[in-house]
Amino acid sequence: MHFGIKRVVIQSVTPQVNGGVFPVKKVVGESVTVQADIFSEGHHHLGADLLWKEVNENEWQRIPMSFVENDRWQAEFPTETVGNYLYTIEAWIDYYASWKEDLLKKIKAETFVNVDIEPGIQVLESIQGNVTRPVAKIIDSIKKKIKESTSSKQLLNYIESLELNDIPRYMLGINSVTRFDKELHVNVKRKKALFSTWYEFFPRSSNPTEAKHGTFKDCIKLIPYIASMGFDTIYFPPIHPIGKKNRKGANNTLCSDGKSPGSPWAIGSKSGGHDAINPELGTMADFHKLIKVAKKNGLEIAIDLAFQCSPDHPYLKKYPEWFKWRSDGTVQFAENPPKKYEDIVPFDFESEQWQELWNELKRVVLFWVEQGIEIFRVDNPHTKPFPFWEWLISEVNHKNPNVLFLSEAFTRPKVMKTLAKVGFDQSYTYFTWRNTKEELTTYVKDLIESSTKEYFRPNFWANTPDILPEYLQYGGKSAHIIRYALAATLSSNCGIYGPVYELIVNQAIVGKEEYLDSEKYEVKTWDLTKNGSISELISLINKARRENPALQTTWNTKFVETENDALIAYVKKAPHDKCNHILVVVNLDYHNVRSGMIHLPLKDLCINDKPYLMHDLITNEKYIWAGESNYVELKPYVIPVHIFKIQSEMKKENNFDYFM
Amino acid sequence: MHFGIKRVVIQSVTPQVNGGVFPVKKVVGESVTVQADIFSEGHHHLGADLLWKEVNENEWQRIPMSFVENDRWQAEFPTETVGNYLYTIEAWIDYYASWKEDLLKKIKAETFVNVDIEPGIQVLESIQGNVTRPVAKIIDSIKKKIKESTSSKQLLNYIESLELNDIPRYMLGINSVTRFDKELHVNVKRKKALFSTWYEFFPRSSNPTEAKHGTFKDCIKLIPYIASMGFDTIYFPPIHPIGKKNRKGANNTLCSDGKSPGSPWAIGSKSGGHDAINPELGTMADFHKLIKVAKKNGLEIAIDLAFQCSPDHPYLKKYPEWFKWRSDGTVQFAENPPKKYEDIVPFDFESEQWQELWNELKRVVLFWVEQGIEIFRVDNPHTKPFPFWEWLISEVNHKNPNVLFLSEAFTRPKVMKTLAKVGFDQSYTYFTWRNTKEELTTYVKDLIESSTKEYFRPNFWANTPDILPEYLQYGGKSAHIIRYALAATLSSNCGIYGPVYELIVNQAIVGKEEYLDSEKYEVKTWDLTKNGSISELISLINKARRENPALQTTWNTKFVETENDALIAYVKKAPHDKCNHILVVVNLDYHNVRSGMIHLPLKDLCINDKPYLMHDLITNEKYIWAGESNYVELKPYVIPVHIFKIQSEMKKENNFDYFM
Repeated sequence: MHFGIKRVVIQSVTPQVNGGVFPVKKVVGESVTVQADIFSEGHHHLGADLLWKEVNENEWQRIPMSFVENDRWQAEFPTETVGNYLYTIEAWIDYYASWKEDLLKKIKAETFVNVDIEPGIQVLESIQGNVTRPVAKIIDSIKKKIKESTSSKQLLNYIESLELNDIPRYMLGINSVTRFDKELHVNVKRKKALFSTWYEFFPRSSNPTEAKHGTFKDCIKLIPYIASMGFDTIYFPPIHPIGKKNRKGANNTLCSDGKSPGSPWAIGSKSGGHDAINPELGTMADFHKLIKVAKKNGLEIAIDLAFQCSPDHPYLKKYPEWFKWRSDGTVQFAENPPKKYEDIVPFDFESEQWQELWNELKRVVLFWVEQGIEIFRVDNPHTKPFPFWEWLISEVNHKNPNVLFLSEAFTRPKVMKTLAKVGFDQSYTYFTWRNTKEELTTYVKDLIESSTKEYFRPNFWANTPDILPEYLQYGGKSAHIIRYALAATLSSNCGIYGPVYELIVNQAIVGKEEYLDSEKYEVKTWDLTKNGSISELISLINKARRENPALQTTWNTKFVETENDALIAYVKKAPHDKCNHILVVVNLDYHNVRSGMIHLPLKDLCINDKPYLMHDLITNEKYIWAGESNYVELKPYVIPVHIFKIQSEMKKENNFDYFM
Repeated sequence: MHFGIKRVVIQSVTPQVNGGVFPVKKVVGESVTVQADIFSEGHHHLGADLLWKEVNENEWQRIPMSFVENDRWQAEFPTETVGNYLYTIEAWIDYYASWKEDLLKKIKAETFVNVDIEPGIQVLESIQGNVTRPVAKIIDSIKKKIKESTSSKQLLNYIESLELNDIPRYMLGINSVTRFDKELHVNVKRKKALFSTWYEFFPRSSNPTEAKHGTFKDCIKLIPYIASMGFDTIYFPPIHPIGKKNRKGANNTLCSDGKSPGSPWAIGSKSGGHDAINPELGTMADFHKLIKVAKKNGLEIAIDLAFQCSPDHPYLKKYPEWFKWRSDGTVQFAENPPKKYEDIVPFDFESEQWQELWNELKRVVLFWVEQGIEIFRVDNPHTKPFPFWEWLISEVNHKNPNVLFLSEAFTRPKVMKTLAKVGFDQSYTYFTWRNTKEELTTYVKDLIESSTKEYFRPNFWANTPDILPEYLQYGGKSAHIIRYALAATLSSNCGIYGPVYELIVNQAIVGKEEYLDSEKYEVKTWDLTKNGSISELISLINKARRENPALQTTWNTKFVETENDALIAYVKKAPHDKCNHILVVVNLDYHNVRSGMIHLPLKDLCINDKPYLMHDLITNEKYIWAGESNYVELKPYVIPVHIFKIQSEMKKENNFDYFM
């Protein structure tokens, strides 16, 4: 019973999500930096180890923690494989170090007496029985040497140089070792959870012939175009059969002529439901082929999980208990009074048969996983219960830990964050409505400087089929470049809904953020070679992302001062590559040329007194900068963005020698 | 099994100390304001109750929580008696309110159809079986009225006016009621834990005859003097027998002539140990009498718990296992190498017999509680294990919940705070070394605006026998007034070590914060009537504290802007008395007259456009102020402090009518 002796306090351990209820999230290659307040009463020397292991391993691995300041300690452990990890902390009073410090002080102050060596000898003796024979021998010789030192000066020199490297430090804590009372979880995903570049498009708009319904075969022909822009993920709105009843026509009107293709989100018809393919798009075999071709081109297909039904969905007959019925025999369709969505029927998650419903929806997801889909964009997850998502995502990841889920939760901040906590790997954000320097800076800081970063991976979308922001409506081409550059450099997960984006299709329904004549209700045909397309610029931005580790994480953005409110600037340093430093400068004013001085934190960037080279990865121009403050001018009608690679070590061949 | 339906999230509940490991602290009359994030998926209406009870009660009391903003809810409960309370939260989906809102929208938008009333009727029916018969009858008539409404306008009017006041709201949550997964503790102490005014003095210096050892009988004669200054607590350094061996003499030298009275902290001699009284001070009967007289004069006696021994303490022979012995037969005395404290032997809290040691120390405390002592100032608690204090304080409070403990932990911030968490009711602070406006503002904000305020009650000491701060050394009388005024108005717990304080005895050992010829090692005789004593000023400050609830809590300080860096100003509003508003202005420059404009937040202080009266409680002068900004000038050689009572409603008899 050592309760009275185990008195080292371990508290305020970070990272923790809701006190350990939810896991911390990482991707392979990110390390987990753990900090804790560790202290005891008095002035003892302490020792601490960070303990970590993969969930199924038996043995803990140990890494010594280092003192930072103000009783705070730190260590980090690597996450090398996809899976779930645990970590905790042990700390103890380091009796040996406490004794050593006191002894050295006494010797120096010449107050040393022989009995002062006793406590140290006692510590060494107490651990001698618990170590390997060679270590026990080392301890023996140390003890002997301490005892036999003939002068205090000799003892001083010997003790000062002694490191005890062979002895596990926690042994020196004897009975004082305290274990933190929680084992905290870390969920490690593949790198794509943190670095992904999304291109959303409607597969039915893939046919080059005017107004002809596109198919997966047509989509295959578009793969090289999308790959050339440098995307790595294609996201399709729902590809399932579309209901006929109450089908919506152009601009969300009720379709009376039966000619509208309907909204893909009105899922289910006599051709099938959530596990079927809309026959107009092709067959499952076509879809498999598309997945294969995409893969060859470095692209993964993501599909939409929209857990709702058209009134024609087979579920309504097969599982009527999953829906709300009214006494007049009608089903309760979706509504947000006074708005009605007559083509959509929601599941009743309060049904007595909720378990059957959950199991069927899990079956649907696993069905698509079997078809080769490992990324799901989830439609409106905030209208279904959190426990459902927590269960579903965990079940699916248990079968296949590579599956990723993107939450389309445009909702209140705490609901959005809770969806991330219960398991979503990425989330839509408010980026779409953050335009000014102040708004962007505040928002990004909230995401990356608060504890939100432990579990919430943002995915910055410049537009979506539901959102054509006013900035894009009014700002045209420059605005589209500006917003994609921001999305792609402020967040390592980003996306656009094309081809409307690169073709600058930006006419909205007056007074709304809705696209006029939206593809949501119509088949479209796009001329991808149209003059004015910004596809080439997008490729350059995506190339910069691909080639620079600094742009492959969201957590490293540091805003820097600019002397112009329309110029936003930030540096990003690669976590593991000391040479990869990026400076992004964006002119947020899509109308006017803006210029000003940019102030760089040279020390942080390892730049010394010499001039340094700024290589613009978009224009391929090179600038020689010197000192902290340099001039930038950005013209919206040319290119409103710099993405500079900072080259602090200029080479001889650059002929800048005369500067040095 | 309603796991899938109970989906309301309750999180980020405040107040919590270390996730509920330690209790939140309050005094009788303070209320506990509880906040939580409460939300579910979607847009349901929610309901929430704060549940609370005294620990030993069976039934929870319920108070409805109100929505604040951004999914945050709030309610508060009162703490009317000393003891331990629990609180938790329940929340649910309010199906009735959700239905009501939708229905009203539909009626207004004229999309209402008859079946739209069904969900509401269903909610009412589902709870009808669980309520009292009269309530069930009310529900019946409501159902009837809803069903029988002949027009939607009639229904609209009826539903809009319906409040369901007789139905406990949580019943409307049906199966969705979620209980927060913790029951959080609140420890409620008597008011003195938050509002106390301490006067420390050495009882042996109470005799008016030069250098004669004072006794408790002499102390009794000083009670009226101390009471007249307005203190409510007298704290004595240890009153136990003092060891002879290695006794310290004047200015902490080793005493060789045997004439020194010794340091009271070297506890224990052949006359007894921690439960004995130094015979030079008198008898236990004298002490009882002192306690009684003090009580009559509104004063409580606090004694010192210094858990350490002189080498002569009876414990060393009786319980040698509680000490560290060295192979040369000597005991390990206290040291902080290279410093040695030869007159003090620490307990070895790592002893195998630690349990016996703990029990004996508990016996000592309870012994003094039996003598009538209910306040203990604890010497250096940070050199004894946290678990010991947690256990000791809880055991003592179990016997007598009125006992208060003040922690003299001048140590690192986290150690200091942990002692408060494990149970100390009050704590010494860094106030003693915070002199400038910036330092004071930052420090006080840290104490009252962070979560520290949930468990750490500061006690601001202007000086102690160990600390004569440089500010007092150099600043003389003005400095002493300034520092006591700050201590007494920034913290509702405050204290001085007198009579050196009020007599402005401030000569230090050169280069140190130690009093020269300190009472710690000598018997002193003080002329309390000496010219220049600030005892009268202290009485005025303490009178202001006694008469103004605004000065009886620490949590209400709001700093206000002043246009002079040497002028610090803050307002304090009484928590339960809307009319008691205090403004304190202090000139921190003890040398020079300082002046400047003070800016008051008039709205916060409920001051309208009219002029208002500022009544200085120290000088009794009255000033007419108007508007936000007013001029203040403070002269260090007169009185460097204003303690204004703000009188926003000026009376006719004040003859200020011409202003209005």
